[in-house]
Amino acid sequence: MTLLMQKELDRLKTQLLTLCAVVEEGVDQAIQALDTFDASLAKQVIGRDEEINHMEVELEEECLKVLALHQPVAIDLRYIIAVLKINNDLERIGDLAANIADQSLALAAGPRIAPPYDCAEMARKARNMLKMSLDSLVRLDVQLARKVLRLDDDVDRQHKENFTLIKEQIRQHPERIDPLSHYLTISRHLERIADLATNIAEDVYYMIEGEIVRHTNTWCTWAPDGE
Amino acid sequence: MTLLMQKELDRLKTQLLTLCAVVEEGVDQAIQALDTFDASLAKQVIGRDEEINHMEVELEEECLKVLALHQPVAIDLRYIIAVLKINNDLERIGDLAANIADQSLALAAGPRIAPPYDCAEMARKARNMLKMSLDSLVRLDVQLARKVLRLDDDVDRQHKENFTLIKEQIRQHPERIDPLSHYLTISRHLERIADLATNIAEDVYYMIEGEIVRHTNTWCTWAPDGE
Repeated sequence: MTLLMQKELDRLKTQLLTLCAVVEEGVDQAIQALDTFDASLAKQVIGRDEEINHMEVELEEECLKVLALHQPVAIDLRYIIAVLKINNDLERIGDLAANIADQSLALAAGPRIAPPYDCAEMARKARNMLKMSLDSLVRLDVQLARKVLRLDDDVDRQHKENFTLIKEQIRQHPERIDPLSHYLTISRHLERIADLATNIAEDVYYMIEGEIVRHTNTWCTWAPDGE
Repeated sequence: MTLLMQKELDRLKTQLLTLCAVVEEGVDQAIQALDTFDASLAKQVIGRDEEINHMEVELEEECLKVLALHQPVAIDLRYIIAVLKINNDLERIGDLAANIADQSLALAAGPRIAPPYDCAEMARKARNMLKMSLDSLVRLDVQLARKVLRLDDDVDRQHKENFTLIKEQIRQHPERIDPLSHYLTISRHLERIADLATNIAEDVYYMIEGEIVRHTNTWCTWAPDGE
């Protein structure tokens, strides 16, 4: 590998880690805004979405430039392909954080109800999966990436339970449909963040091992919903 | 470009078009199953999801091989990157079709209600966007890709209207929450199919023009939800 290409790869890594940090902060703030009904914090998360979009396009352009100029092979090629995919997943997580912040604004504006499920606990799980997947990326840790994949089932199950619970509450209190729908959307978004953390872990696995483990269950049991 | 690489690119194209055909058929059949409550057709769509997953992984592996072996540049490189992304979008559309089929089974099993919105019309719009985006890919037609992007707003708006309509019906008939939730999920999935068709059109645009148009509104107005 040339020194120039090594420099370019390092630069991609720095850009990706900056994006990771911004997206992680967005998720944390969205969860905090939801917990405290902090409208100003929620608006801050929503406002930052455009910055994240911009960072995503910039990083993708850099990846494509490095591919075109240096024509990397083997692990370097896999690294860039993984960065391209993780970049896209991070942008989608940023969207979901902005959307959770949006739901928290709607909840704050309407009549307050007790959350129908343990939001904080579900947020903690999704947040933990995201942190682990990003740590596995930073440390190139296959074992940690595997762990993320094993956790996805739990969040999926919790979302299904929340759905059943919320439907039951709507049946009993149809007048509360607005806030209950917001809580359902939030549960779906948290489940999607966990799914995307799983995607990131799969990409880290691919980058290190050179094997695509999506849709397989030979090495662990998990069933991503895909959507 | 070497003759061998041209052959490999042609093979990628054939594989991608086969996947397109299978996914398009899946969406059509899911919509038909929903319209006619045809459980056997719905199960066929669900059963085919695994085949689609397999095709996606195979195509991705082929793209990575061509990248590693032939180190393409310029439009060939952009072509392979676009195939990688479109491949992923198609797999997600396949998941959504299977999910719509699943919802149609649940609707068929429960008490029947009149659909709360014009399912067939919304399905027609999403289906049309998918067809146009795939046609723009086959014909490398930038103008057609632009058209797809302009249509996305309409489907987004329709989904929001459906959501409001369904919430109102649940308020009035809380006992119908199960079938109404299924129709809401179907509306969301159709909206997601339209979003993914938009992604495909953006990738076709990038492949031909070499410019990333995601998150921009300089050349048309649209606001993808991103989720």
